[in-house]
Amino acid sequence: MTDTRRLHVPIHLRWGDLDAFNHVNNTSMLKLLEEARVRVFWVPEVGEDAPATAVIESGIEAGVLTLIARQEIEYLAPVPYRRAPLDVQLWFSKLGGSSIEVCYEVFSPESDPHQQLYARATTVVVMVDAATGRPMRLTDEMRSAWEPYLGEPVVYGHRR
Amino acid sequence: MTDTRRLHVPIHLRWGDLDAFNHVNNTSMLKLLEEARVRVFWVPEVGEDAPATAVIESGIEAGVLTLIARQEIEYLAPVPYRRAPLDVQLWFSKLGGSSIEVCYEVFSPESDPHQQLYARATTVVVMVDAATGRPMRLTDEMRSAWEPYLGEPVVYGHRR
Amino acid sequence: MTDTRRLHVPIHLRWGDLDAFNHVNNTSMLKLLEEARVRVFWVPEVGEDAPATAVIESGIEAGVLTLIARQEIEYLAPVPYRRAPLDVQLWFSKLGGSSIEVCYEVFSPESDPHQQLYARATTVVVMVDAATGRPMRLTDEMRSAWEPYLGEPVVYGHRR
Amino acid sequence: MTDTRRLHVPIHLRWGDLDAFNHVNNTSMLKLLEEARVRVFWVPEVGEDAPATAVIESGIEAGVLTLIARQEIEYLAPVPYRRAPLDVQLWFSKLGGSSIEVCYEVFSPESDPHQQLYARATTVVVMVDAATGRPMRLTDEMRSAWEPYLGEPVVYGHRR
Repeated sequence: MTDTRRLHVPIHLRWGDLDAFNHVNNTSMLKLLEEARVRVFWVPEVGEDAPATAVIESGIEAGVLTLIARQEIEYLAPVPYRRAPLDVQLWFSKLGGSSIEVCYEVFSPESDPHQQLYARATTVVVMVDAATGRPMRLTDEMRSAWEPYLGEPVVYGHRR
Repeated sequence: MTDTRRLHVPIHLRWGDLDAFNHVNNTSMLKLLEEARVRVFWVPEVGEDAPATAVIESGIEAGVLTLIARQEIEYLAPVPYRRAPLDVQLWFSKLGGSSIEVCYEVFSPESDPHQQLYARATTVVVMVDAATGRPMRLTDEMRSAWEPYLGEPVVYGHRR
Repeated sequence: MTDTRRLHVPIHLRWGDLDAFNHVNNTSMLKLLEEARVRVFWVPEVGEDAPATAVIESGIEAGVLTLIARQEIEYLAPVPYRRAPLDVQLWFSKLGGSSIEVCYEVFSPESDPHQQLYARATTVVVMVDAATGRPMRLTDEMRSAWEPYLGEPVVYGHRR
Repeated sequence: MTDTRRLHVPIHLRWGDLDAFNHVNNTSMLKLLEEARVRVFWVPEVGEDAPATAVIESGIEAGVLTLIARQEIEYLAPVPYRRAPLDVQLWFSKLGGSSIEVCYEVFSPESDPHQQLYARATTVVVMVDAATGRPMRLTDEMRSAWEPYLGEPVVYGHRR
């Protein structure tokens, strides 16, 4: 599948994401992915813009937690601080019974004439009942909202 | 001075700025102020937008560090996660020999019909020579770039 | 009062507390103060060590939030990464109806032959009912646990 | 190899590592691994304790950066805030030409009668020349310091 539909989420860096090596810290990159997920998945407040995939009512009060079961990431190039937002691209490689596998490619800003690929990553997110801690099945609404973005999993160059 | 000119810097929250009390952590608020300072003061890269106040070449390689000498902040209301960026308003209450006193009011997004004031703060920033660690005098370029935003200092309601 | 009793809380730095200037970021310092407060104030779990001041049952589930109303901090010297924990010293300058004013001096590790003072700070913490958001009065248990550490407020050298 | 030698690094949580779901955030866990690596690998200052593996002079000034090329992590259980330090166990699954593959298991504190396994992870660290950005070969000192901790790679239960 060469032309998987992708969500493009602009995420602003903060200078505070840099570490003492003067580039974006490896854990800050995962913070950017977390923020991209929140924008893509969580039901918007009144008046907020959000994509059609934003159908999770998440939070302790809503009764649903979105827990991270596993993550994998390859860092391809150091990321400098920029004012323009990075272009975090997302798609989904699997809809499980109560989980979703989220794939990402993180690029330099969309305004760049030649965008640079900084990282590839995968996150498995599990829906969990906040009260019992047990997995909750994806709803039909979730499946139909997310299916348009199903695609191939990330292929990692350096996995052993 | 009732109508000080202010810089308006839109700064996006991240869900990760929340703490276990489910609102923006007190230290995250200072992270937002830090990012607003970077956008206001640091010379932009080619092709980046920045206000006329952005005249500091900051960084270890540039030879100039912008160190924080003191901060004061009052938190007026808990801040929830929002997709729309907060409206961080800045002005300057003093240009010293080698320092600048930065004032902030942090408001809910500009798109809100009735913006809420979340916090007031002040930061004293000192220009320091990266090699020697000694203060550096503000240049004439800095003074003329920053003078249009000079105004009254923040008045704190709960100082003792 | 020249010999206020103080709590000494050892707090480990993390290399991740450094920023691109290669010293502890100004907001990380407040993160260290937050952690010192948690160790000093929050009721310990079974088997945990904690000082006699640790009498707050804090958390959304416990029904009590400890909110930060204001902070003030002066940074006296850049802080490098060290494996040994910093020596965060705390005392209290005021017990209000529903608030406590916490004072800090942050020193280099206690093992240093000549400890360096890195920062002075003050935080006003307000007890709030998690359900109603309204202030809660300090209990007699809190007052008697905290009174032994009452002392003079921090004097700031560069306040205007 | 059933009894790989492991390094045990006690790493303190901070309450600030929790997110709005009231447990340690997925990215905070990687921050703990980062700190464990620093303690294990970086040459100590005068008077600091460090294991025999601490032979990297890391930093922009030292001329050597330790960059992260890839990470993989599985989260097995939510981690609550605790005062006692987590028991981060490390070993190495490969010494490459200019890289090292670090394996971790993160356990509840060593003082627990029945320690709980919270996460398994792997990080590939590459030594890079700070000036040129090119990989640097591991030295003989590094190889002999690290070989005693060579063992089997982490087996991931949910990889696809």
